[in-house]
Amino acid sequence: MSSSSKPRVVVTRSLGPQVMGPFEARGDVEVDCWPEDTVVDRAWLLEHVKGAAGLLVAFGEKVNTELLDAAGPSLKVVSTMSVGYDHFDVPEIKKRGIKMGYTPGVLTNAVADLTILLILMASRNAGYTSALVQRGDWPSSPWSPYAFCGPQLSTIPSSPKRTIGFLGFGRIAQATLTRLIAFGVTDVVYTTRSLSADKDAEYAKQFPTLNSIKGVSLEDMAKQSDIVVLLAPGGDATYHMIGEAFLRQMKPTAILVNAGRGTVVDSDALAKALKEGWLCSAGLDVVEGEPNVGKDHPLVKEAKCVILPHLGSATIETRLGMANLAVQNVLGGLGLCEMGEVLDP
Amino acid sequence: MSSSSKPRVVVTRSLGPQVMGPFEARGDVEVDCWPEDTVVDRAWLLEHVKGAAGLLVAFGEKVNTELLDAAGPSLKVVSTMSVGYDHFDVPEIKKRGIKMGYTPGVLTNAVADLTILLILMASRNAGYTSALVQRGDWPSSPWSPYAFCGPQLSTIPSSPKRTIGFLGFGRIAQATLTRLIAFGVTDVVYTTRSLSADKDAEYAKQFPTLNSIKGVSLEDMAKQSDIVVLLAPGGDATYHMIGEAFLRQMKPTAILVNAGRGTVVDSDALAKALKEGWLCSAGLDVVEGEPNVGKDHPLVKEAKCVILPHLGSATIETRLGMANLAVQNVLGGLGLCEMGEVLDP
Repeated sequence: MSSSSKPRVVVTRSLGPQVMGPFEARGDVEVDCWPEDTVVDRAWLLEHVKGAAGLLVAFGEKVNTELLDAAGPSLKVVSTMSVGYDHFDVPEIKKRGIKMGYTPGVLTNAVADLTILLILMASRNAGYTSALVQRGDWPSSPWSPYAFCGPQLSTIPSSPKRTIGFLGFGRIAQATLTRLIAFGVTDVVYTTRSLSADKDAEYAKQFPTLNSIKGVSLEDMAKQSDIVVLLAPGGDATYHMIGEAFLRQMKPTAILVNAGRGTVVDSDALAKALKEGWLCSAGLDVVEGEPNVGKDHPLVKEAKCVILPHLGSATIETRLGMANLAVQNVLGGLGLCEMGEVLDP
Repeated sequence: MSSSSKPRVVVTRSLGPQVMGPFEARGDVEVDCWPEDTVVDRAWLLEHVKGAAGLLVAFGEKVNTELLDAAGPSLKVVSTMSVGYDHFDVPEIKKRGIKMGYTPGVLTNAVADLTILLILMASRNAGYTSALVQRGDWPSSPWSPYAFCGPQLSTIPSSPKRTIGFLGFGRIAQATLTRLIAFGVTDVVYTTRSLSADKDAEYAKQFPTLNSIKGVSLEDMAKQSDIVVLLAPGGDATYHMIGEAFLRQMKPTAILVNAGRGTVVDSDALAKALKEGWLCSAGLDVVEGEPNVGKDHPLVKEAKCVILPHLGSATIETRLGMANLAVQNVLGGLGLCEMGEVLDP
């Protein structure tokens, strides 16, 4: 059996035996995978993509004119194991009639879990205090009535109201809110591109136990929220939307959480705000310029800021789901099954 | 106005201006508070307690024969700002006809929040990865499909079942379960002193969206749970209940969380279990021997174990609630208001 009769798919990173096993065992495609467990070598990729019918990449691996030219007219589909597609030159790919696949949806719950984790870590000083235990400083940290205390997420009779502000109110934000309601959260303000009374009414129906849910201006969200949750996409429209003006309007007891894109927050402004107490604390899963966020980054140096290295979708179940969907999308683009998630912005 | 005509209350630690202000402003009691923001000096306490009518203490400050003898027959009430009362010599206090107050209930939600935090920190490797960012190692930690991945708390279509095991199923465990249900948790197994089909039926009614909830043996809980949550009291009955035998029966993908009492877990056995992969990871808010848990403690050295320094009730709202209740209890014991929570074990 000559492999030249079968379409060839180039894969830039092994997706693990559970996914690669069945993929490679199919009789109808030839899988050509970068053999190392590292980021793919660009020269290898440019060489191997020649004449390929499909290309499966990870976030950050640029699919641009150079790569598309190297592939040639045989390329029918590019599939990314990510919900973001900043690494795709979309107009160029579209112009060539190449299909695009991505993996939204499957990661909604993993990111919503992570958002709750960030809220709790920031409010309960968990980054600072777990590091304190690691350093061996628990024995010298005696109990005192308000030591390590931050604001409480859940409501109690003596403190019966919590207002959550969302920047962006899509699938992940709504899944996060479902979780927050179980903690007794009572009120929601959200900011999206377009606000309407109809939308408010729709959400009120969707979350009937809330006291109120309404779309507001960015300024009102800053002023009213006990917790601000950022789940907005990146890009020019949201660049540094959270800067000094917004942060100065927050409650001094409030916390800020970013589980969306790092570029939404002006890091220097946030570091200054935390240092000067404009808000209480922050939890970040994304930071502008990541992963080049080193020890001397102003937010890494802030005790009131806890940072996770972009773990949003990082669970075994979800990453397997994303990998399987990315494989399905590349096969779908070759007409070997139905595509799961077609990207068509 | 002579202060000698008013009952005197000795307070071993300032409860902050919001609580001490109104307490000291009352005309009907004299408040005698240890003036430093440190653990009370025992000699000062033994001296000041002489002739006092009330005593308000924090967790760990022993109310024993020595102290009761020093106080003399004037003492009518001892009140602790804690839910635990291991520091009370209960028979001795009862024998003397002294009332006891404590602060359960008000901290339920704060501890339930903390339990969710521990579950998410342990499953998402948040202790390890936040420390990695702090060390400046994010730039040298490139993305890979399964880097930093742990088991996912929330259910998804490809992984639709989560079984939570509870050791102890009181108020805090039930508040924790309310939160977990919003993450899609489907099944519950619990171990308490006495199990019965009636109890199972009652809980099934209380949590109607669960697929199943039932009381089981410790062994079955170990075998069936994806997440084991320890919220049992301390003491002889639960001492090292979680040891090598239990840990060996856990699923290798499971996580263990302790938000109850440190003595329930055999620390050496848990460290060995984590090292050898009998379970996936652990999150602890309490450790036997705390706060004397230093850098060389076997669990502090385990990368798969995240430890918080007993933050269970540590939120501003809850600690204020506990402080106010402790004041109410001491005043109640003097007949100046109704007692909030009488301790009568």
